[in-house]
Amino acid sequence: MEKQRQSFHDNSLYRILITAIAVAATFLVAIETTRFNSNYHHYIERLELIVFGLLVLDFVVNLFLGQPLKYMHKYLLSFEGAVDLVTSLPFFILLFDLEQFHFLKLILGIAAFLKIARFSDALTIFKDVIISERKSILASLYLMMLLTFAISTVLYFVEKDANPKGFSSILESMWWSVVTLATVGYGDVVPVTALGKLLGALASIVGLGMFALPAGILANGFAQELARIKYITSWNLVSKVPLFATLDRGTISEIARMLTVKRFSKNETIIKQGDIGDAMYFILEGEVEVVIADSDKIVQLKKGQFFGEIALLRDTKRTASVIAKRRCEMLELTSYELKHLIRSRPEIVSKIEKVANARFDLP
Amino acid sequence: MEKQRQSFHDNSLYRILITAIAVAATFLVAIETTRFNSNYHHYIERLELIVFGLLVLDFVVNLFLGQPLKYMHKYLLSFEGAVDLVTSLPFFILLFDLEQFHFLKLILGIAAFLKIARFSDALTIFKDVIISERKSILASLYLMMLLTFAISTVLYFVEKDANPKGFSSILESMWWSVVTLATVGYGDVVPVTALGKLLGALASIVGLGMFALPAGILANGFAQELARIKYITSWNLVSKVPLFATLDRGTISEIARMLTVKRFSKNETIIKQGDIGDAMYFILEGEVEVVIADSDKIVQLKKGQFFGEIALLRDTKRTASVIAKRRCEMLELTSYELKHLIRSRPEIVSKIEKVANARFDLP
Amino acid sequence: MEKQRQSFHDNSLYRILITAIAVAATFLVAIETTRFNSNYHHYIERLELIVFGLLVLDFVVNLFLGQPLKYMHKYLLSFEGAVDLVTSLPFFILLFDLEQFHFLKLILGIAAFLKIARFSDALTIFKDVIISERKSILASLYLMMLLTFAISTVLYFVEKDANPKGFSSILESMWWSVVTLATVGYGDVVPVTALGKLLGALASIVGLGMFALPAGILANGFAQELARIKYITSWNLVSKVPLFATLDRGTISEIARMLTVKRFSKNETIIKQGDIGDAMYFILEGEVEVVIADSDKIVQLKKGQFFGEIALLRDTKRTASVIAKRRCEMLELTSYELKHLIRSRPEIVSKIEKVANARFDLP
Amino acid sequence: MEKQRQSFHDNSLYRILITAIAVAATFLVAIETTRFNSNYHHYIERLELIVFGLLVLDFVVNLFLGQPLKYMHKYLLSFEGAVDLVTSLPFFILLFDLEQFHFLKLILGIAAFLKIARFSDALTIFKDVIISERKSILASLYLMMLLTFAISTVLYFVEKDANPKGFSSILESMWWSVVTLATVGYGDVVPVTALGKLLGALASIVGLGMFALPAGILANGFAQELARIKYITSWNLVSKVPLFATLDRGTISEIARMLTVKRFSKNETIIKQGDIGDAMYFILEGEVEVVIADSDKIVQLKKGQFFGEIALLRDTKRTASVIAKRRCEMLELTSYELKHLIRSRPEIVSKIEKVANARFDLP
Repeated sequence: MEKQRQSFHDNSLYRILITAIAVAATFLVAIETTRFNSNYHHYIERLELIVFGLLVLDFVVNLFLGQPLKYMHKYLLSFEGAVDLVTSLPFFILLFDLEQFHFLKLILGIAAFLKIARFSDALTIFKDVIISERKSILASLYLMMLLTFAISTVLYFVEKDANPKGFSSILESMWWSVVTLATVGYGDVVPVTALGKLLGALASIVGLGMFALPAGILANGFAQELARIKYITSWNLVSKVPLFATLDRGTISEIARMLTVKRFSKNETIIKQGDIGDAMYFILEGEVEVVIADSDKIVQLKKGQFFGEIALLRDTKRTASVIAKRRCEMLELTSYELKHLIRSRPEIVSKIEKVANARFDLP
Repeated sequence: MEKQRQSFHDNSLYRILITAIAVAATFLVAIETTRFNSNYHHYIERLELIVFGLLVLDFVVNLFLGQPLKYMHKYLLSFEGAVDLVTSLPFFILLFDLEQFHFLKLILGIAAFLKIARFSDALTIFKDVIISERKSILASLYLMMLLTFAISTVLYFVEKDANPKGFSSILESMWWSVVTLATVGYGDVVPVTALGKLLGALASIVGLGMFALPAGILANGFAQELARIKYITSWNLVSKVPLFATLDRGTISEIARMLTVKRFSKNETIIKQGDIGDAMYFILEGEVEVVIADSDKIVQLKKGQFFGEIALLRDTKRTASVIAKRRCEMLELTSYELKHLIRSRPEIVSKIEKVANARFDLP
Repeated sequence: MEKQRQSFHDNSLYRILITAIAVAATFLVAIETTRFNSNYHHYIERLELIVFGLLVLDFVVNLFLGQPLKYMHKYLLSFEGAVDLVTSLPFFILLFDLEQFHFLKLILGIAAFLKIARFSDALTIFKDVIISERKSILASLYLMMLLTFAISTVLYFVEKDANPKGFSSILESMWWSVVTLATVGYGDVVPVTALGKLLGALASIVGLGMFALPAGILANGFAQELARIKYITSWNLVSKVPLFATLDRGTISEIARMLTVKRFSKNETIIKQGDIGDAMYFILEGEVEVVIADSDKIVQLKKGQFFGEIALLRDTKRTASVIAKRRCEMLELTSYELKHLIRSRPEIVSKIEKVANARFDLP
Repeated sequence: MEKQRQSFHDNSLYRILITAIAVAATFLVAIETTRFNSNYHHYIERLELIVFGLLVLDFVVNLFLGQPLKYMHKYLLSFEGAVDLVTSLPFFILLFDLEQFHFLKLILGIAAFLKIARFSDALTIFKDVIISERKSILASLYLMMLLTFAISTVLYFVEKDANPKGFSSILESMWWSVVTLATVGYGDVVPVTALGKLLGALASIVGLGMFALPAGILANGFAQELARIKYITSWNLVSKVPLFATLDRGTISEIARMLTVKRFSKNETIIKQGDIGDAMYFILEGEVEVVIADSDKIVQLKKGQFFGEIALLRDTKRTASVIAKRRCEMLELTSYELKHLIRSRPEIVSKIEKVANARFDLP
């Protein structure tokens, strides 16, 4: 069931189309509220009918083709299904000209933007990070509120006589506090007494330190999660290379840490037959073609595969060319770094040599 | 003594109740200062009597039931006790209608918000981080002050003639400096000379770099402390698994780094009897039930325990189902990752096999 | 030479005094520029004479007693010496009533704040971090300027007709750009055209990402430097314990990572004679007294020393009490964690046991 | 081809000159738009002719001397070449007094600032980090837009009646949203209803957390990249020292982590002949001279070389002085730390001793 829908969402054209429709829907309802609408009302309404019609179409296709019919209710109860359902309602509001639901059309039009969320892996990681950092974020929100309450109460007493408009009550004072602590600083309310200014200055400084904390915590959590994912990916890539089969896990970890990301554009030559080889490559993303001159044999390598590993041991000439079939991301391991790494262990080098020889049927 | 109070605070209902009361107290005194009060004064006062009465009750209960009577003074001298005591005072100010202490009622009402602090573990970590980063934070505060003084003095000389209202003295100039350096930027004072604007622009840039530093330092310290706690927790969990008893500490560290957090909702099936197993789980939070079909035996597993470890070695069918009794947080270790990790050490695999066999009475 | 001055600066009273004098000097010249001065001019001048007199005294003492006389020129050419020298000048400006140097008195008064810098170790680390991250910071400053120039030029063309006051030239436009990109946002210049607002909104978003980068880079560099210092400190502490003499460096690293910072206040009991021991302690800061009941022998332990290591191996009763003589910071290593760590290596345990037995003259 | 141009760009004087010219061009066109221009138009135009003439010269020199003629098209199609080409156009606009291209002259004048980019290595790292973090940054931009749309729509409904000027349409409302969420806060539009203020306050808090995220992600990615580069550099430096040839890679990693950056100014003495040695040094940047008293032999050491390694083993006197020929950056390894590190492995110490003896022809 999930796979069926997945094949949908992996299609680039579908992604671009839905993203464009969602952006268009959002933009149309935003523009509908401007003066611009009075002049071009007719055109805007037509465009809205088309865009919201396409949203209805997407909903219907997803409903009936996205999964076997017996799982239809699961789709409708999922976040995706719910978004698809409600964003197809504006079409009917428009079609039957339901004036009383006009505000709903606006809100659901903006909500169409939520359809884009399903195409991003990074958002899933964001969600995980927010869930796992929820205690820290709640604690810093608590501290922010505590700070806001404290500052507001004090400033209320300090400023209420000299500045009755901005600090007429603790609630009014809170508006100033949040605007100051979050460093927005509209300037519609500003303390006027000397003590109020002193406390306001202190609050600005502490506020910046406290209100920027959640962003820092999230960014750190995010970086750690990405580092963990990258570590596991690199580790798995390196551990699959037969050459390294005899290495212990510590050495594999060290090798994994020495990989460098390289990017190649479409049709770029990564390895040229006849050159002296000095690095091997792991394919992170994309596809390459291994071409041998004067030979019809062309081998295709994909994500997760590797090539050029013989160069790590011997400074021989490359026996084939490797060309990027589309934009590729590679992890590069140079012989220079590997040689340093394993120099102190002659027994490992000889074992690796043995594996390499076996591969090429040498004695 | 501590345990008695702890049992109190671990009760979810008590936590929610106290949090609600504290928020209500804060909200009531904040609303009391608005115009809204003149119309509904009577109702607000009644609500305040009830809310502050409950705060008195909580204080009395904590005082007499929270610990053996002979430790009562310790409670009163603790931060918690002091907060409980002072936040029960507004009740008596209200009861005896002490007009002259009205401002105290407002302040202590806001202070009720402090009662929530005791329920958060994360705040303790925050406190530790602030204490251990105190030198760096003091140093950056010093640099901020230095920057503020320098900018204020220079801007005073540059702007005092053209802009006598905002820069009439170095003290006045400091108000502008802090508001600018902390990027609040009310706009009540703005440099008007060309040189003043140039220096103000430079100050904005340097200010953002300097005034955001403490938040960055705190966020980093916090992330490191959380990572340390997580590392020790994972390490302890992994090292308790009999299967891994023969592994050296380096390998256990590597395994601990490969754990992934998974979350399950109440009644969700984590493992289904008959499925092919490919992962084991450590319970971080929550409780699970191990159920074997056609058998009455139900085993309960709690925080710190683990299950499914046989799947790491053999691709056998699961011999029981495991269901989350409430919202659970698990650490998952997949056989795929473990197999890669220990592939290069056949002697370890055979040792683990031996332990596994012994567990199932196989030859 | 350096040592002589060091002994000065390590004296707490001297530090507090100089800090107070520097703050007072800064405060006095700041207040001298306010209206407050016209009423209390006489008192402020007297206070200034005293405070600046003390600054002269400090300079003279440092000059003649801070080092052997033949190194005097080195002191005068150092940053510290230069600050001491120039901050003693206002005294003479005051004394001889040199009206034409009044502005200099103000500036040098504020500069007195620089005297505090010498007491902070953290500032040295800051300086190191800024130097080693200088390339990244210069590169992000370059990007900021590039962004500022680009935005200013575009906004100049977009807004110059509709908003001639704020965007009359590219230079004027830059003032708006920096104020916006650094998220200060005074509001004295605001784009009014639709395109200007769209570009301004984009600039705000990109600006926040770009202008907050240096703070993030500095905070990260600072955190790494602190982590490196902490790692070396912990490593050195652990490697000095005789019990661990037989461990290889990998295990010592692992142990060092498991240390937890604990703080004890003056006169607090860290270990109580007769309790079951379960942790050892390294003294990071402060001093402790080892007291054995019914014995006059009192041992003093200082920074860098350790105690309680026997508890890591045997669950025996503590043979002495240890009391904090002043505020202490300890690193705690619990037997629980250590036991897990070394469980898999029986040969290590037996070696440690042997060392422990030797220490207590057991067979 | 690349090498030829490289030799150009490595020349300090050329770098400074081009940087100065680029800054001058940017400054001149910025000043040309101010009132200042009306008075000094003649001088400004002359200066522009000179500065833009130099830009033409730089383009011509790069075009004909920067590479063999047959690669000229590659240069013209590169980013550098394109920048050089377009920034030489203003000269001809000036020369032939093409009034209709005046705006182009302004834009290309500002673009001259792009010429400086080629001199910075850090910018390349920035570009790499932005590319590898692109998914996270896109995801957070999506979340920002989602937040902006949601807040704008809600505030439009809440404020449109009470505040028709600032919230007349969803588009107008978005201007306020971005200005608030990015914490710029001009104050030209401010919510006036109680509900609008409450939602605005919440938006400020969430906005700061969300809009500061990209800066945090970039700063973290940047820090990790720098740490990886530093790790590989240190590792390579340490592994090249013959003394450490017998150490396994784990120990070399540990040593690499204990290196401290030290800086020396020109002509400073790093090691003084006759002193007791306690540290060795690796040259990160700069050049040193090894001088032996009463001997004419002077050895020059450069980036990547090392000296003083004997001091790590024996507390002998330094046999030569080492003086920094220009500003140097060194990595220092003290004998104190190394001794602790290898103390637990007597066999390593004896192996190192053997290498050291061989070096000095001792038995």
